Amino acid sequence: MTDHLAAVLDRIDADLDKSLERLFEFIRIPSISTDPAYKEVCRRAAEWLADELRELGFDASARTTEGHPMVVGHQVQPAKGPHVLFYGHYDVQPVDPIELWSTPPFEPTLVEAPDGDTWIVARGASDDKGALMTFIEACRAWRAVSGELPIRVSILLEGEEESGSPSLKPFLEAFRDELAADVALVCDTDMWDNDTPAVTTMLRGLVGEEVEITCASRDLHSGMFGSAARNPIHVLTEILAALRDAEGRITLAGFYDGVQELPAAVKEQWSRLPFDEAGFLGQVGLSIPAGEKGRSVLEQIWGRPTCEINGIVGGYTGEGFKTVIPSKASAKVSFRLVTGQDPAKVREAFRAHVRAAIPADCTVTFKEHGGSPALSLPLDGPWLKPTLDALTQEWGREAALAGTGGSIPIVGDFKRLLNMDALMVGFARFDNRVHSPNEKYDLSSFHHGIRSWARILAAFAR
Amino acid sequence: MTDHLAAVLDRIDADLDKSLERLFEFIRIPSISTDPAYKEVCRRAAEWLADELRELGFDASARTTEGHPMVVGHQVQPAKGPHVLFYGHYDVQPVDPIELWSTPPFEPTLVEAPDGDTWIVARGASDDKGALMTFIEACRAWRAVSGELPIRVSILLEGEEESGSPSLKPFLEAFRDELAADVALVCDTDMWDNDTPAVTTMLRGLVGEEVEITCASRDLHSGMFGSAARNPIHVLTEILAALRDAEGRITLAGFYDGVQELPAAVKEQWSRLPFDEAGFLGQVGLSIPAGEKGRSVLEQIWGRPTCEINGIVGGYTGEGFKTVIPSKASAKVSFRLVTGQDPAKVREAFRAHVRAAIPADCTVTFKEHGGSPALSLPLDGPWLKPTLDALTQEWGREAALAGTGGSIPIVGDFKRLLNMDALMVGFARFDNRVHSPNEKYDLSSFHHGIRSWARILAAFAR
Repeated sequence: MTDHLAAVLDRIDADLDKSLERLFEFIRIPSISTDPAYKEVCRRAAEWLADELRELGFDASARTTEGHPMVVGHQVQPAKGPHVLFYGHYDVQPVDPIELWSTPPFEPTLVEAPDGDTWIVARGASDDKGALMTFIEACRAWRAVSGELPIRVSILLEGEEESGSPSLKPFLEAFRDELAADVALVCDTDMWDNDTPAVTTMLRGLVGEEVEITCASRDLHSGMFGSAARNPIHVLTEILAALRDAEGRITLAGFYDGVQELPAAVKEQWSRLPFDEAGFLGQVGLSIPAGEKGRSVLEQIWGRPTCEINGIVGGYTGEGFKTVIPSKASAKVSFRLVTGQDPAKVREAFRAHVRAAIPADCTVTFKEHGGSPALSLPLDGPWLKPTLDALTQEWGREAALAGTGGSIPIVGDFKRLLNMDALMVGFARFDNRVHSPNEKYDLSSFHHGIRSWARILAAFAR
Repeated sequence: MTDHLAAVLDRIDADLDKSLERLFEFIRIPSISTDPAYKEVCRRAAEWLADELRELGFDASARTTEGHPMVVGHQVQPAKGPHVLFYGHYDVQPVDPIELWSTPPFEPTLVEAPDGDTWIVARGASDDKGALMTFIEACRAWRAVSGELPIRVSILLEGEEESGSPSLKPFLEAFRDELAADVALVCDTDMWDNDTPAVTTMLRGLVGEEVEITCASRDLHSGMFGSAARNPIHVLTEILAALRDAEGRITLAGFYDGVQELPAAVKEQWSRLPFDEAGFLGQVGLSIPAGEKGRSVLEQIWGRPTCEINGIVGGYTGEGFKTVIPSKASAKVSFRLVTGQDPAKVREAFRAHVRAAIPADCTVTFKEHGGSPALSLPLDGPWLKPTLDALTQEWGREAALAGTGGSIPIVGDFKRLLNMDALMVGFARFDNRVHSPNEKYDLSSFHHGIRSWARILAAFAR
């Protein structure tokens, strides 16, 4: 079967214009999931995909949910070997502010890029229509050349990713047996840089907490009560300032329990691969990494647990001045977790830290805002090495192991509900203006993306 | 002249009902200064006072300003001896929320108090109509008995105290020579407790500062930039937490330069006089003094310099959670100063403290919100001892030397513009509900207040 790979890659090259035409047709369906006015349009996008999949031999349908339809397709041949579930989403972000678009957002336009590449400019060109079509076009080429796919493939395409995926969990739970596979493939991430492919293997977890401190039973005049009456803003700032030490480490008891140093191979690769620390911070007007001392920016954002204060408020915050001692002050605090950390324990350590600093005549209340553990793809599992090899061959550059500081909820859902690891491979560039006007996808992302998936499917068949 | 005192006091007792009637007539003029609808009413109150003063032999008039009129009166006899300027205000606070009043706010009502006293319930009964009438009625009794006042008296009554006194400074500057006297008498403060009279001799100064810290050039997603990008809320909380040490002392360089310990006599008196620390804090739901360790609550609120954070805001503060790293965070901070501290130096020390903690790639801006030095009446000057003696005789309790943590701007204006110390003597009780519904003044405050001023005028004549 894998003997066909060279022919498959040739076929992809030869058919690129047709692949692009299909992508354009798909993009022209303005499937904005958050706007109820586009409900029928979203269904049309789902039906379009189901038709495409059926044409490729999938047993596929657009299944009704309480929100937008889920497209599910299965190809049961070959009966042996690994079974993968590919995930993508057919919905797109709204286009506002429309006046900032240079071309109509749902009329894909080819634009010559400064670096000689070609940009496909349109809403959804990158996120996620262009990306998911790389996988479908790879399947098409395989089928055209060999009559079947090299491994067993199922596909799940949702239409609510840009609006919080409300139907996804219930759907995964209801069709657990049908959707479970050996590994999930997710195509919604970035390249390492413009030339270097990447597999995202580390996703940090998150613990969100809101804390409100109450001192006096009402707001007080600081002239009358100042200094003698406890000020909750003082208490809060002391608690929050004490969360980090001078080295940038989090001070909560037991916070680093279970945290492992990055594998040496990853650290070594990160130090070798190009990453423009100055440029990364410089794009937002900063120059000095703020996290743990002695850690690179990449370690800080992908590989280490952290704490951020995301909001704080207390007292008088309007124009001018009021000499008030407020009754209450509050803050929203989040922790990003890495593998080995237990969200429940981190939350409890934070609450203990706060409670220990609350004077006996004051009170504190907590509100929980989500908690999820970090996820990481085993470096020594059966999926990573063949994927890295396939990407390295396609792009002519050593493929990188990347992390992401943000969360990709579907990956956690796959793990928790279907006990399935996810392999995150994406071809997006950092400058794709995802969610913004003039979103684009490089033609090279699309072309080499299709070829990359063709190689990965072959590699899994070995 | 002072031989008349006994007769004057008798006269006050005999005429109390008539004094009360005049106060009621005055209270019934609803002179709310902040509401433009009451402009003519305020003028009526001013004219009513000028009439009263003329009846007592003052050369008096209600003088037009850009705001509400100033009532000024002079009595030039006797030509020898000290000259005092009495200050009060005829305007009152609005009455909202009106539904919480048990009786109509501008219809004074006598109510039997739980302790056997009688309350005069009305807006302005205490602040400041009842208080200023104690002085006028004392003058009336003196004049009735002896045909003239024992010392030279001028009177200044403004109508904008409850709305920021915009006309006061220009008026003092314009009539500097006319208004300058040997000492000012201000009747707008409290008793020590229900039975103990007090002279307020210490007023703390104030420095207000607003600080805004900017890190990144825009709000960032904490998943993408968290830890590597500087968070201005972290920076701000560290700066604010470091303003006080574990002993509750302010850490700014040079902050305590020039600060003297309280005179031993004052400290000794404060430790001897009744003050219910537990009750003071307990009324607002607290029990543990929060200021400098080893200092009493009275020292903390009256006699020591402090720092309060009056407001703080940054990041997402609405419902729910956003994993944002904001670009900016800001706080409003105030310092209360005691004698010996220079507001300009304190402001500069604060700014230096902040600047030293700002990372090189972040910026800070400051906004000044007022600055005034502390004021204190010399303990060994010519005014304090006779006043304390007079009050002690009237109330049968040793009169106390009090401070106040808040500011009374008129006192600073008298000092700066007319180079005149102010003697603050007041008969209000803590529970007078000043500025609130059901404001009241105790009949005993009114009665013994009139008698107290009669004694003070006599004491100054000696």
